[in-house]
Amino acid sequence: MSANEALLTLEGWYTYHNFRTINWEKWKAASAEERQAALDELNGLIRTWEANEAENQGSTAFYSILGHKADLVFMFLRPTMQELEEIKTAFNKTRFAAFTDAPYSYVSVVELSNYVHNPGEDPKANPHVRDRLYPILPKWEHICFYPMNKKRDLQDNWYMLSMQERQEMMRSHGMIGRSYAGRVKQIIGGSVGFDDWEWGVTLFANDPLEFKHIVYEMRFDEVSARFGEFGNFLVGNVLNQETLAKKLEV
Amino acid sequence: MSANEALLTLEGWYTYHNFRTINWEKWKAASAEERQAALDELNGLIRTWEANEAENQGSTAFYSILGHKADLVFMFLRPTMQELEEIKTAFNKTRFAAFTDAPYSYVSVVELSNYVHNPGEDPKANPHVRDRLYPILPKWEHICFYPMNKKRDLQDNWYMLSMQERQEMMRSHGMIGRSYAGRVKQIIGGSVGFDDWEWGVTLFANDPLEFKHIVYEMRFDEVSARFGEFGNFLVGNVLNQETLAKKLEV
Amino acid sequence: MSANEALLTLEGWYTYHNFRTINWEKWKAASAEERQAALDELNGLIRTWEANEAENQGSTAFYSILGHKADLVFMFLRPTMQELEEIKTAFNKTRFAAFTDAPYSYVSVVELSNYVHNPGEDPKANPHVRDRLYPILPKWEHICFYPMNKKRDLQDNWYMLSMQERQEMMRSHGMIGRSYAGRVKQIIGGSVGFDDWEWGVTLFANDPLEFKHIVYEMRFDEVSARFGEFGNFLVGNVLNQETLAKKLEV
Amino acid sequence: MSANEALLTLEGWYTYHNFRTINWEKWKAASAEERQAALDELNGLIRTWEANEAENQGSTAFYSILGHKADLVFMFLRPTMQELEEIKTAFNKTRFAAFTDAPYSYVSVVELSNYVHNPGEDPKANPHVRDRLYPILPKWEHICFYPMNKKRDLQDNWYMLSMQERQEMMRSHGMIGRSYAGRVKQIIGGSVGFDDWEWGVTLFANDPLEFKHIVYEMRFDEVSARFGEFGNFLVGNVLNQETLAKKLEV
Amino acid sequence: MSANEALLTLEGWYTYHNFRTINWEKWKAASAEERQAALDELNGLIRTWEANEAENQGSTAFYSILGHKADLVFMFLRPTMQELEEIKTAFNKTRFAAFTDAPYSYVSVVELSNYVHNPGEDPKANPHVRDRLYPILPKWEHICFYPMNKKRDLQDNWYMLSMQERQEMMRSHGMIGRSYAGRVKQIIGGSVGFDDWEWGVTLFANDPLEFKHIVYEMRFDEVSARFGEFGNFLVGNVLNQETLAKKLEV
Repeated sequence: MSANEALLTLEGWYTYHNFRTINWEKWKAASAEERQAALDELNGLIRTWEANEAENQGSTAFYSILGHKADLVFMFLRPTMQELEEIKTAFNKTRFAAFTDAPYSYVSVVELSNYVHNPGEDPKANPHVRDRLYPILPKWEHICFYPMNKKRDLQDNWYMLSMQERQEMMRSHGMIGRSYAGRVKQIIGGSVGFDDWEWGVTLFANDPLEFKHIVYEMRFDEVSARFGEFGNFLVGNVLNQETLAKKLEV
Repeated sequence: MSANEALLTLEGWYTYHNFRTINWEKWKAASAEERQAALDELNGLIRTWEANEAENQGSTAFYSILGHKADLVFMFLRPTMQELEEIKTAFNKTRFAAFTDAPYSYVSVVELSNYVHNPGEDPKANPHVRDRLYPILPKWEHICFYPMNKKRDLQDNWYMLSMQERQEMMRSHGMIGRSYAGRVKQIIGGSVGFDDWEWGVTLFANDPLEFKHIVYEMRFDEVSARFGEFGNFLVGNVLNQETLAKKLEV
Repeated sequence: MSANEALLTLEGWYTYHNFRTINWEKWKAASAEERQAALDELNGLIRTWEANEAENQGSTAFYSILGHKADLVFMFLRPTMQELEEIKTAFNKTRFAAFTDAPYSYVSVVELSNYVHNPGEDPKANPHVRDRLYPILPKWEHICFYPMNKKRDLQDNWYMLSMQERQEMMRSHGMIGRSYAGRVKQIIGGSVGFDDWEWGVTLFANDPLEFKHIVYEMRFDEVSARFGEFGNFLVGNVLNQETLAKKLEV
Repeated sequence: MSANEALLTLEGWYTYHNFRTINWEKWKAASAEERQAALDELNGLIRTWEANEAENQGSTAFYSILGHKADLVFMFLRPTMQELEEIKTAFNKTRFAAFTDAPYSYVSVVELSNYVHNPGEDPKANPHVRDRLYPILPKWEHICFYPMNKKRDLQDNWYMLSMQERQEMMRSHGMIGRSYAGRVKQIIGGSVGFDDWEWGVTLFANDPLEFKHIVYEMRFDEVSARFGEFGNFLVGNVLNQETLAKKLEV
Repeated sequence: MSANEALLTLEGWYTYHNFRTINWEKWKAASAEERQAALDELNGLIRTWEANEAENQGSTAFYSILGHKADLVFMFLRPTMQELEEIKTAFNKTRFAAFTDAPYSYVSVVELSNYVHNPGEDPKANPHVRDRLYPILPKWEHICFYPMNKKRDLQDNWYMLSMQERQEMMRSHGMIGRSYAGRVKQIIGGSVGFDDWEWGVTLFANDPLEFKHIVYEMRFDEVSARFGEFGNFLVGNVLNQETLAKKLEV
């Protein structure tokens, strides 16, 4: 990698996906008062997250998750790793946390790759760039999360390609992404050095079939077909304070 | 992938396989009244699922599972992901759920691939197509479930083949499937973007040897031999309210 | 695979390996009466299994297992999957089951491959064939179980070979097996469509070194060397009602 | 490997990364007195570690860990494996340990590779070498840990390369490392024969983006691109007695 | 493999590595009397193991293990698998066992490979051979255990090599081993048919760096570089009744 190429990657807010499973038996065994206290305390946290978002100091969204891998995900964007730790610790100290487990999580930083800018220009002064590095999470109906690597397997080794080859493949890849504009919102978290995979991808859509279509269409693209290596996929439905409370009614 | 190809895939109902293990010790430790209350409540849910099926708003089936990986599977087909979440949450809130664990699950959408239709025609207006996208699950004696990927391994990379090569291989594959018509009913769930594998396959048969024969015969087909990648296989016997109650008698 | 080849595989009894670990702490914490009641109940089941074997309706054997992966295995052969489920459920309802966990299991069907018979002949009418498809498990001193696949890895793809190539390799493989006749008894369970591997192999011997020798010798055979893919290996010593009771004395 | 090459590797202090998760529910259920007693006892241990470091008999640092994989890491450098065991045992006997689990750990020895010295010279007499073999851990803001292997995969087999090829690649690799001097401090633990991977890498930085940049830049280097095989990545924020106490306030 | 080659492998005592983790919380919660009773009972077992060794009917050693994977290992060599089972059962019935878990174990048989002897000669009559097949475990300061396979991966397939190729590689491998004579004692357990890997290697040394050096040096040897496949590595420090008691003091 030339030094130039590194400069082409811009980083924004740090991200933390906090996946939780609910221990329904324990939840149901709690008294109505305990459950309400847990919910009130959680809603208090949610309001601080909303205030944080209103002040443009980060963004937060939470969704239910389908299947047995998790029941909920709280996704946080914040300026520093210290804030991610504070959020984790604050969450873990709540009454609600004691009714849940943490089967999975992801730590990354919002990343804009292959960004070409004029020498001397500060890319982060560009409002369009800022919106992508410090995004307010859309509260669209559905979320999809998956981590991924670029493969390094004998002749299918992404990191042994020339920069030109990689850029051409990424350009074609980006074209597919752009054809879903307005229907799929994509946030790329770079996690090299932070978590077990190289990237964590979060997609938002109002129609979950869009997730299937975009991921499937991209899989035929050479960059995914030959070089994409994927982890678990988690999919879910949007929540807010009210629908979360309703979900937790027993 | 050309835009055309995407159109060749039709999607129907969303699917959710809810695999459960029974905590027999806890079940036996419960009083006869508690067990009966749990069973009554579960049967209440089952009746709502039956009503849903009678109204053609989805379909449900449940089976015992052999071996240690699970004891039961509840398989749901529903028009939306929201309904899958509601079913999951409703199940988890039952008394019965507290006597079980969820070792596995699968989320997908019923998929019809390589469907060729005349331009201008609405394929979903075709009753034959509708029956395959919105199927009523047969309550045949046995179920077999397994997830699968198409391989992307150096020269054995399905997604680097031309559309024609893929269609020819799939056609031969389909021929084997058709030769089991009436003996094996197959439901393909597409799960790209939804779960950890690209597809979840559910087979139904009255003779479990049919599962062995069809999967084994297909394994010699180039599309499986070179490109099939398989996850866990789970097999079981059909249940209904009565046989489930009998199974749970202690 | 030609249709002919499928006919060359004969299936017999369904098989279920039920591996268990003993919770010694719980077992010791139980009163002598509880332990005796658990053992009496288990022995009652064992007698029904013996009766089943005496009536030629199946076969059963149980062994201790070495190492930490399991403590016991109960191996069942039965005519139907329904009977395997009934055995599983009956075992799980016993007092003894509550002192154990199920770390592993295997579901398959006894299989005789590459059996060539004259057209018009019913192979199952041949007593020699019947003995191999519906075997009475020898209660030899030691058991060895392992699951396996035939590899599909680029140029080492078993399922892309011609039938003639496969038959020649299997013949040489079978020759090794035959040279252990009388010292190693082998039962092949076909599990395509039933469990996570394609076959489950159970070996019996009075000298456990025979397991090492036969598996090692076969590993140099091309069919294993290039195409064998192996799962966990579990080894153990024969048990009967008396030695099991002695093992459980605390 | 020639005998010479082995001599080019120098070893210093043994290392032990003790990752812990906190059982918050248990921690909160404890009385304020119990929590204080646990913390006092832990701080007592910390003071012995500080004394050890002051006497140049080892070094210790502790950090919070982000995500669900762990909450804390205590990293120890000591002259002998016996001391690592004593630290492990002493920690496990504390009240605090009972509020935590050990999801992960790593055992290695500080290693300086490819060190070229004049014959007859004792490299450990060189103060610069000593500082790298017996380093005082910097208490920089952030830590990053990951284990790694050199790949042995068909034509990408590090151990089949000539010493010259390996040295050239490592030299280029080292150049990248040096360009981060002052911003990233790297400690290489050799763990061949000690733990599951061949090396454990610990990075320290005040800006966590440095971790992302150095690891990503190195990934394009042939030695990582073709031969690097990586395990889990864990990232965290520095702690001291005061911030740890604050983190544990409930 | 020719029949001759099988004869070149000699087997001695069966081996069982019993790895345990200590539940310190439970241990500390026990009364001093309960702890002493548990320790007394364990020491009673240890004395029977010592008597067994004194009578040349087997050998036993126990070590602490570093890191989180285990806390202790008890390594047993015995003439029969039945005795290994008796040891396992006797250990599991002790009070001490209830304060521990069994995260790992290994079952194998001491093996001497490529032993060439004159026809008509009984190799086991040779005292030098007997010492290697029925070794008294050295109670050296440190232990290292790892399981391994010979790879079967496309062109790197050990089992497809000619016997001559294998013997030449093994000879070079053995030369490295011999150069550590007196500093590293190596016991090879053959586990084909007995456990999940083909061999379990146990090394003893007074300086743990010897483990690193011998394993690393061998890794450049073609037989390891191209054909070695390694599992977990566990390393530890020697224990005896006194140091074990001291370790368990709370």
